Amino acid sequence: MPPTSGDEIETLIATMARLPGLGPRSARRIVLHLIRRRAGQMAQLAALMASVAEHARECLVCGNITQSDICPICEDPGRATGEICVVTDVADLWALERGRAFHGRYHVLGGSLSALDEIGPEDLRIPQLIARIAEEKVTEVILALSATVEGQTTAHYIAEALAPTGVAVTGLAQGVPIGGELDYLDDGTITAALRARRQF
Amino acid sequence: MPPTSGDEIETLIATMARLPGLGPRSARRIVLHLIRRRAGQMAQLAALMASVAEHARECLVCGNITQSDICPICEDPGRATGEICVVTDVADLWALERGRAFHGRYHVLGGSLSALDEIGPEDLRIPQLIARIAEEKVTEVILALSATVEGQTTAHYIAEALAPTGVAVTGLAQGVPIGGELDYLDDGTITAALRARRQF
Repeated sequence: MPPTSGDEIETLIATMARLPGLGPRSARRIVLHLIRRRAGQMAQLAALMASVAEHARECLVCGNITQSDICPICEDPGRATGEICVVTDVADLWALERGRAFHGRYHVLGGSLSALDEIGPEDLRIPQLIARIAEEKVTEVILALSATVEGQTTAHYIAEALAPTGVAVTGLAQGVPIGGELDYLDDGTITAALRARRQF
Repeated sequence: MPPTSGDEIETLIATMARLPGLGPRSARRIVLHLIRRRAGQMAQLAALMASVAEHARECLVCGNITQSDICPICEDPGRATGEICVVTDVADLWALERGRAFHGRYHVLGGSLSALDEIGPEDLRIPQLIARIAEEKVTEVILALSATVEGQTTAHYIAEALAPTGVAVTGLAQGVPIGGELDYLDDGTITAALRARRQF
């Protein structure tokens, strides 16, 4: 790393280089870019980052990242109260919001069940989900979890835990992704899409 | 972008997405990573960035990025005063320092001459370089400029400007890069390497 340009600049590059998707080369490039704009963009970015670091927290209802106690989605009276979409992570919530297809509310688990990593239901906001079903007038819980072993284990656990409440539990459809070429799809996806085939 | 997680988080993602090498997806990933570590890493990074934004400036002698008036290289009594290596940019200075092969001092031009972009010698710290030759006991100026049209135009301009001072002006060798396979090299490089061939 640059051994001659002041300790803080070196430390900044080393810190940036540890961010996901970045490395020493891209961190150096970004830091030089910012230093050239140090009075404007860099000072603004630093202030913004400090403010988000101070104010960002989890929505008390759904676990979304927000800057108030209750996130804008949970507070929005225009969103259907009867549907809760369960996601693993805030990144998944953002992805669903970009799709603009879901108009209910969310519940962020914060991870997947894992015996190996000793992550149990209490670590995942599952008790809070069960409490919401009782408190809010929920008619459908959509499990938008990853189609991985951990995701599907978590989905089955939640479906069983919710069975006594009588709420409808659904999952995302599995099949060929839009724009997907059959030739490049794995066997599991093709088999799932064939089994779940529908009237044309 | 995530329309539901507070204006500042959105703005932070949008700002990060404009940094070189990043885009909306990588910016979202980095911001989520930081928000998960908001009390520690994110607050530290923000403070570090604010401090660098406030204190970073150009070395009054060579133009290197530093946090004092004179950079550690110019202040280091262990570095040869007789050799000045001229580079386009601070990134090039850092690259040369990582190589640990040069033990003299630097002079950062801050760009290349360009008639198109109306960048003249006064915009490039070339007058300061000529002044340094007179003030310091310089015996050799090494032009470590890019092997591009702009870089070589700048190199020729500097060599002519320095001719009256009688200082030795050298340039980096051109040839096959270490680890380079001839098959993948462009014709220009192969021709330059052949012309500059040396006794084995």
